Amino acid sequence: MTHATTTTAAPAADSVPFERWLASRGQRTEHALERVLPPAATHPARLHEAMRYAVLGGGKRVRPLLVHAAGEAGGAPASALDCAACAVELVHAYSLVHDDLPCMDDDVLRRGRPTVHVRYGEALAMLVGDALQALAFEVLAASSAHGASAAATTAMVAELARTAGSVGMVGGQAIDLASVGAALGREALEDMHRRKTGALLRASVRLGALCAPDAGAAAEARVHRLQALDRYADAVGLAFQVVDDILDVEGDAATLGKTAGKDAQSNKPTYVSALGLDAARRLAGQLREQAHEAIAPLGEAAHSLAGLADLIVLRKS
Amino acid sequence: MTHATTTTAAPAADSVPFERWLASRGQRTEHALERVLPPAATHPARLHEAMRYAVLGGGKRVRPLLVHAAGEAGGAPASALDCAACAVELVHAYSLVHDDLPCMDDDVLRRGRPTVHVRYGEALAMLVGDALQALAFEVLAASSAHGASAAATTAMVAELARTAGSVGMVGGQAIDLASVGAALGREALEDMHRRKTGALLRASVRLGALCAPDAGAAAEARVHRLQALDRYADAVGLAFQVVDDILDVEGDAATLGKTAGKDAQSNKPTYVSALGLDAARRLAGQLREQAHEAIAPLGEAAHSLAGLADLIVLRKS
Repeated sequence: MTHATTTTAAPAADSVPFERWLASRGQRTEHALERVLPPAATHPARLHEAMRYAVLGGGKRVRPLLVHAAGEAGGAPASALDCAACAVELVHAYSLVHDDLPCMDDDVLRRGRPTVHVRYGEALAMLVGDALQALAFEVLAASSAHGASAAATTAMVAELARTAGSVGMVGGQAIDLASVGAALGREALEDMHRRKTGALLRASVRLGALCAPDAGAAAEARVHRLQALDRYADAVGLAFQVVDDILDVEGDAATLGKTAGKDAQSNKPTYVSALGLDAARRLAGQLREQAHEAIAPLGEAAHSLAGLADLIVLRKS
Repeated sequence: MTHATTTTAAPAADSVPFERWLASRGQRTEHALERVLPPAATHPARLHEAMRYAVLGGGKRVRPLLVHAAGEAGGAPASALDCAACAVELVHAYSLVHDDLPCMDDDVLRRGRPTVHVRYGEALAMLVGDALQALAFEVLAASSAHGASAAATTAMVAELARTAGSVGMVGGQAIDLASVGAALGREALEDMHRRKTGALLRASVRLGALCAPDAGAAAEARVHRLQALDRYADAVGLAFQVVDDILDVEGDAATLGKTAGKDAQSNKPTYVSALGLDAARRLAGQLREQAHEAIAPLGEAAHSLAGLADLIVLRKS
């Protein structure tokens, strides 16, 4: 149990099967990422080596896991989910490389290793991010050759692009950039995080759902399922950020694999600075409950989604 | 006639209708770009204002024109071509914003105005580029709602993503980055430019062709048409870069709208430095001829493509 936990929701009773699911899908994701990234010797080799360094550096793979969990809840084919899972992780990885650059957060440590620009230089780090974003869409387009319909693939590309873009993730970064030193209210803070982090987590859930075949479910049932998943994704997305802010205060660099206390140092508004530590912890617990409630109607098929909500709130790094 | 012209190919006889086509498709592209870019007041406003500044700054729109010309040669619906045309231009625009950054070419002038990072700061310029790339794929995915099939849309996304990525445009940038001060041979120089500039010009032609309906043409005829267009695109892509290098030596900043003589100053290998000015001019003329020959079998339908080849070789900026 970490400091971020609360007593408001009990851990899942059957945590062993979930742990097994987690290990299996985590491994599957590593293999899929390894496969979709060009080999390090591909010309130009330094770029491809740096791209692999950026992605295969041992992230938590929360977004790919959400893709798989949401997709499996709807009976989606596993190899289409691999494509979507890689795509969201590649977008996430690109955003980290660009965020760490000197002109942004100027971070030197990520996942316990030197950041890409420290290791490969600023210019190549920018190109790594640019290439990873392109690769995300290339891999996602391949879903239609792996069991997703062409229409679903097109819908996924539109969803991921909107999520990654100026009203989504990049928009959140721009708001973040403008907010340094400013006192953001709770609403503005939530808006920023919903774009910056929440949007891609939500898109992960939606992409998984879009991989699921349309046949076999009435239109109304599908809409209800998607709405339940959206409510789940909203709660989990917000919880993720709240816990991040808590860990930034409580954690140490060795556990986090990145510089701790960075937000406070750089005078960035966080949930902890806005609400205080105790209220932030309570909020994380409430959001975990909301996530569980949202997917309750989906029954046993949403088991892994429930486990992921716990994982996100209870994580130590 | 500019210094870049040669006497090896005569100008098109019926240049008036082409001029009219050019003005019409150019205007259509401006309107389409204006429409797909979020309004400047959209939150976060500074990001959206900067995105519009980067794109609506009066480029030559060569890539959108290639999309329209290639698509019309195959009878593609105009509004699907608008989507593809905007997508390639957005990728082009994003690449310019990132290339101009201090960690890359460190350019302060583009299209006769301050570059995005000079006007909006380095961090926001990076985000502008990131958001424009995402927008390109969002707009391209919308092709399926504008007359292209879902399968064709998926194929276009895959094509543009591969073109923009680490083995295409960004790969070319990485090679360029590594080549400063190095003496690249003719083959290595061509490889770099094929990726850096040629790939997106070629993709523009291919995306236009992909928008065309499959029905009504035998598989063999379609393959021949695509091969002819690829040969055209290869010649035009290379010619574009050769002429760029010639203009960098011959032009002045007022005509070019960017800093002239930049390549020589930064000791970058160019066609002029590799071949000499006269041989570079002859090469441009030969490539123009090759482009015309490639599309000769397509007859009158390829009229605009022929005009664009002339435009690219004979341009003054």
